[in-house]
Amino acid sequence: MRYRLWYWPTIQGRGEFVRLAFEAAGIAYDDCARIEGAEAMLADLETRAATGRGPYAPPYLALDGHAIAQVANILQFLGQQHDLAPSGLADRSWLNQVQLTIADLVAEVHNVHHPVAMMDYYDHQKPEAARAAAQFREERLPKFLDHFEAAARQGSGDWLFDHRWSYGDTSLFQIVEGLRYMFPQRMATLEPRYPALVRLHDAVADLPGIRAYCASERRLPFNTDGIFRHYPELDAA
Amino acid sequence: MRYRLWYWPTIQGRGEFVRLAFEAAGIAYDDCARIEGAEAMLADLETRAATGRGPYAPPYLALDGHAIAQVANILQFLGQQHDLAPSGLADRSWLNQVQLTIADLVAEVHNVHHPVAMMDYYDHQKPEAARAAAQFREERLPKFLDHFEAAARQGSGDWLFDHRWSYGDTSLFQIVEGLRYMFPQRMATLEPRYPALVRLHDAVADLPGIRAYCASERRLPFNTDGIFRHYPELDAA
Repeated sequence: MRYRLWYWPTIQGRGEFVRLAFEAAGIAYDDCARIEGAEAMLADLETRAATGRGPYAPPYLALDGHAIAQVANILQFLGQQHDLAPSGLADRSWLNQVQLTIADLVAEVHNVHHPVAMMDYYDHQKPEAARAAAQFREERLPKFLDHFEAAARQGSGDWLFDHRWSYGDTSLFQIVEGLRYMFPQRMATLEPRYPALVRLHDAVADLPGIRAYCASERRLPFNTDGIFRHYPELDAA
Repeated sequence: MRYRLWYWPTIQGRGEFVRLAFEAAGIAYDDCARIEGAEAMLADLETRAATGRGPYAPPYLALDGHAIAQVANILQFLGQQHDLAPSGLADRSWLNQVQLTIADLVAEVHNVHHPVAMMDYYDHQKPEAARAAAQFREERLPKFLDHFEAAARQGSGDWLFDHRWSYGDTSLFQIVEGLRYMFPQRMATLEPRYPALVRLHDAVADLPGIRAYCASERRLPFNTDGIFRHYPELDAA
């Protein structure tokens, strides 16, 4: 069986957290909107919305008879089905907590370039974005990275848990990748403070499935349509 | 055993979703920071952060040996422990998805009054907030309410699932309560479009535990320190 993942076909975005777990684990999946187009996804979403149990937004997995949406929810499901998560209740709960804190960071990252009008263009809110970016770089970003560094430091070997990778590790990898792209100057300043997080990132990059993925055309490049966007005017050391 | 919940003692905020589940189910808990003070919570957070598995932010439940943070994660845990959630995998996953979509709405609501500087005062970002509020009222709010109305409509009787309430129902109750407080004019315009959601809200309000809670001093009033804030200048029909 191949999973059917639906997400915007031209960006990494939130869908990338799911793609990375699939790729690291070698789980077969179709990235459906890259095959069938975004219009097919929108039509599928509309059909599902009519049932009352549709996704609010992509990404989602289309399973027999229902869909699973929300990144943390999808990863929790895959973690249980494919042993990509620890088995104990406290560990599983803590992993879900890490993923939800990553989701909070992702929402704040999006807010940096869309502070006053989520549905409008960046060009229409540049002064506001500059102000949002300054506070994000100075206050919010170090607070999140402190938290993830502590999480990485308490882990075992390179990983958050159990001497093997979980979906929390692939998600933290993506956070480091995205922040380096969006804020190269700021991250160059901050990274020396976060050696355990960088080590975890490097260990994920070195997983065979991730190495192959990142060398393939399946890994879309970062761009200024996604969540992590590099606008030089929003970065500073 | 009484649960130990830690959350800011003077606001409903994100902690209210947990309080409502406790109160509806009649589960004993201490709202610790209302007993011991916010300083005690900050000290507790600092101790936990040093372990590498601390909460990023309140609310959290302090259990033997570990803490569970993030509202959706706490509610998932309580749902399993106390039968406040359906038992099937597809249903549980969908309930978690609803709760995570509520979390997205809550983050966007906070962003309305803090669009460019999450850590700064509303008074320092009023023009930006006015712009954020306009788009929220016009575009984002109806999109979320359409989604929750469909969820309520596909449910059974008054509830999302199984002819009995789950934590998804108490959380949707709080969304309606908060939005009515924050945007009374806008909600007066929109509510007639959402009869199933309003019926679900009313059914939760009528649960004995919720009726007693809302009549008690344990239910803090909404105020302009919380997530849902009524600033008349941000509302419009």
